[in-house]
Amino acid sequence: MQQVFEQAAARIAGAPVSSICAGRTDAGVHAQAQVAHIDLARNITANSLAAALNYHLKPHPVVVRQAAIVPAEFSARFSAIGRAYRYTILNRRARPALLLNRVWHVPAPLDAQAMAQAAAPLLGRHDFSSFRAASCQAKSPLRTLDRLDVERSGETITIIAEARSFLHHQVRNMVGTLRLVGDGRWPPERMAQTLAACDRRQAGPTAPPEGLTLTGVRYLPDPFGTSGSTFAENSGVG
Amino acid sequence: MQQVFEQAAARIAGAPVSSICAGRTDAGVHAQAQVAHIDLARNITANSLAAALNYHLKPHPVVVRQAAIVPAEFSARFSAIGRAYRYTILNRRARPALLLNRVWHVPAPLDAQAMAQAAAPLLGRHDFSSFRAASCQAKSPLRTLDRLDVERSGETITIIAEARSFLHHQVRNMVGTLRLVGDGRWPPERMAQTLAACDRRQAGPTAPPEGLTLTGVRYLPDPFGTSGSTFAENSGVG
Repeated sequence: MQQVFEQAAARIAGAPVSSICAGRTDAGVHAQAQVAHIDLARNITANSLAAALNYHLKPHPVVVRQAAIVPAEFSARFSAIGRAYRYTILNRRARPALLLNRVWHVPAPLDAQAMAQAAAPLLGRHDFSSFRAASCQAKSPLRTLDRLDVERSGETITIIAEARSFLHHQVRNMVGTLRLVGDGRWPPERMAQTLAACDRRQAGPTAPPEGLTLTGVRYLPDPFGTSGSTFAENSGVG
Repeated sequence: MQQVFEQAAARIAGAPVSSICAGRTDAGVHAQAQVAHIDLARNITANSLAAALNYHLKPHPVVVRQAAIVPAEFSARFSAIGRAYRYTILNRRARPALLLNRVWHVPAPLDAQAMAQAAAPLLGRHDFSSFRAASCQAKSPLRTLDRLDVERSGETITIIAEARSFLHHQVRNMVGTLRLVGDGRWPPERMAQTLAACDRRQAGPTAPPEGLTLTGVRYLPDPFGTSGSTFAENSGVG
């Protein structure tokens, strides 16, 4: 996605362009509300830039929903004060059809209430080493988890995770571990013990990328204005 | 979809199988809750049949969510007493990305309230010739429209249509005409005049298939039991 975006930007700049993204979206992960910044040497209005980028992004399934001119010190990555992800599990025997490649298909029945109970002790500021990918580049394993909701609606289990920032694979590792609670292999209490162990080997496997969507990024001040807020439920789908 | 389904059923029957579907889903149209019946010469439980069909349906994006044994006189098509469709318009300048091929992309701003006002006079029993495809095989153009709701949520306009049965392309023709009201080319009152004209040439163009999803089919008694009801909001997504 980032490569496709930078190619479109390069067509406008007439030279190679590097972009910085707010949230990492590994292969297979979806983004409803990614935010990226680029430096351009030419003057162009925000609306014209969005239109030009979208013209050059065709036919790739990547679109710019909104653009804004920002101060030189703004960074899509480092200025972000909140990130929201949604992870979707399709919990039924039958494979996904309409949601193919958009969900993690778990055929065995999951207890969403037990998963929610297991998730609660992860809220707050902790060392999340147990849920950190070996490849993680962050200096510190400390993160503050502001939200980790688990809810069932019919055959779908939705997990919403919010934090200022996440470690690499943190959401997918938390979800992969919550699944062990959901299918009864782990008692809910084991989640807190796993967190306290600060050892990746104590946690469950990494959930697959298909179920994960970056749904929002928050800034203060918001360069898109209040109406253009991209955070969590405020963001559209598209 | 029907062809893929019949091929899977033929693998189980060991002979060609014909199926009858509740709702027509033309190329490009989606089905969350299609219902089909087949005649099989062998004894098999409903659960085993669903599992065997799903095995043979791989890797096509078609799955059987539930199967039921029905009386010989049951017809997925003729026993249905209600059908529900959802039509989704993505109403924003930027092209669809995550919803590619799932929505009708209309860049010009649409007035959903005007569309809802225009839709109201279509409710009830009418001659729907103005919204009927030339290819329609139905004996009568009379249909009873039970619901035609138009609602906006952010960038998305959702139209829900319910009736015992629909004429060919009726939903897409109604949506294509409502769009003319939405973008201001038609006053809302013209919708009722168009209905009264009983002339397909008086109505708007057919909306594209991508935005249309069959979301539910109702039977009485429901062969899937109350919990397995497939109608409208009761049905899952997947």
